[in-house]
Amino acid sequence: MERVPVLKIGDILLVSIQIDMEDQVALQLQEDLADKIVVTGCHGVIIDISALDIVDSFVGRTLATIASVSKVLDADTVVVGMRPAVAITLVELGLSLPGIRTALNVELGMKLLAQEREQYELDLEDEDEEPAVSTR
Amino acid sequence: MERVPVLKIGDILLVSIQIDMEDQVALQLQEDLADKIVVTGCHGVIIDISALDIVDSFVGRTLATIASVSKVLDADTVVVGMRPAVAITLVELGLSLPGIRTALNVELGMKLLAQEREQYELDLEDEDEEPAVSTR
Repeated sequence: MERVPVLKIGDILLVSIQIDMEDQVALQLQEDLADKIVVTGCHGVIIDISALDIVDSFVGRTLATIASVSKVLDADTVVVGMRPAVAITLVELGLSLPGIRTALNVELGMKLLAQEREQYELDLEDEDEEPAVSTR
Repeated sequence: MERVPVLKIGDILLVSIQIDMEDQVALQLQEDLADKIVVTGCHGVIIDISALDIVDSFVGRTLATIASVSKVLDADTVVVGMRPAVAITLVELGLSLPGIRTALNVELGMKLLAQEREQYELDLEDEDEEPAVSTR
């Protein structure tokens, strides 16, 4: 069976989808990704779909599920590299990919994830409400 | 036609090969990669083959060609993610991937490229100081 590899780059897991997302491939990817988030402790997932000509409702649902599972495991997901034609078709089909953040390319996706993580950690510090001054 | 995407991450171009390397796909990848090296000015190329069950002589030649073309364009190439079974088969077939550097995963590949680049720039500086004969 074909399998989509999950690559670790620093604090981010990168997935480049190039093959047809059949049921088994999608399920396997969800499982691999969840396993790898737990094992590596990464806080960000980037899914590159620049190789996809079509994003149908099944692929849309798969991406949404991956984003939800990752969120539960304390990792944010960004979908990058969407082709213009894919974006147009998505909107025409009424699929707006709810709950999925997008960025133009991998680098911008990494930037977005880093910013979010920073904000999240700042929020956490505020919640700790320790009167002492944080050095970070 | 299927196409292998080339992702830019900092000073590195990342290619994850997941589909069968037929003639057209291989040629297209070589072309895309060469174009992108020139456009972005990246100095490193990482080719991830963790999705490949088999690396035959054609794939081996393709990787070697990519490495040579990249070298001419002033970019180093590292192949990462080779499965143990693939390594064993390669050696059994007598294919030793001459001229191709390997690393275990993307992160180690990036480290290797960064080290090489640093060394290369140090060498350049040395040559600048002694403007006698350029060996490169």
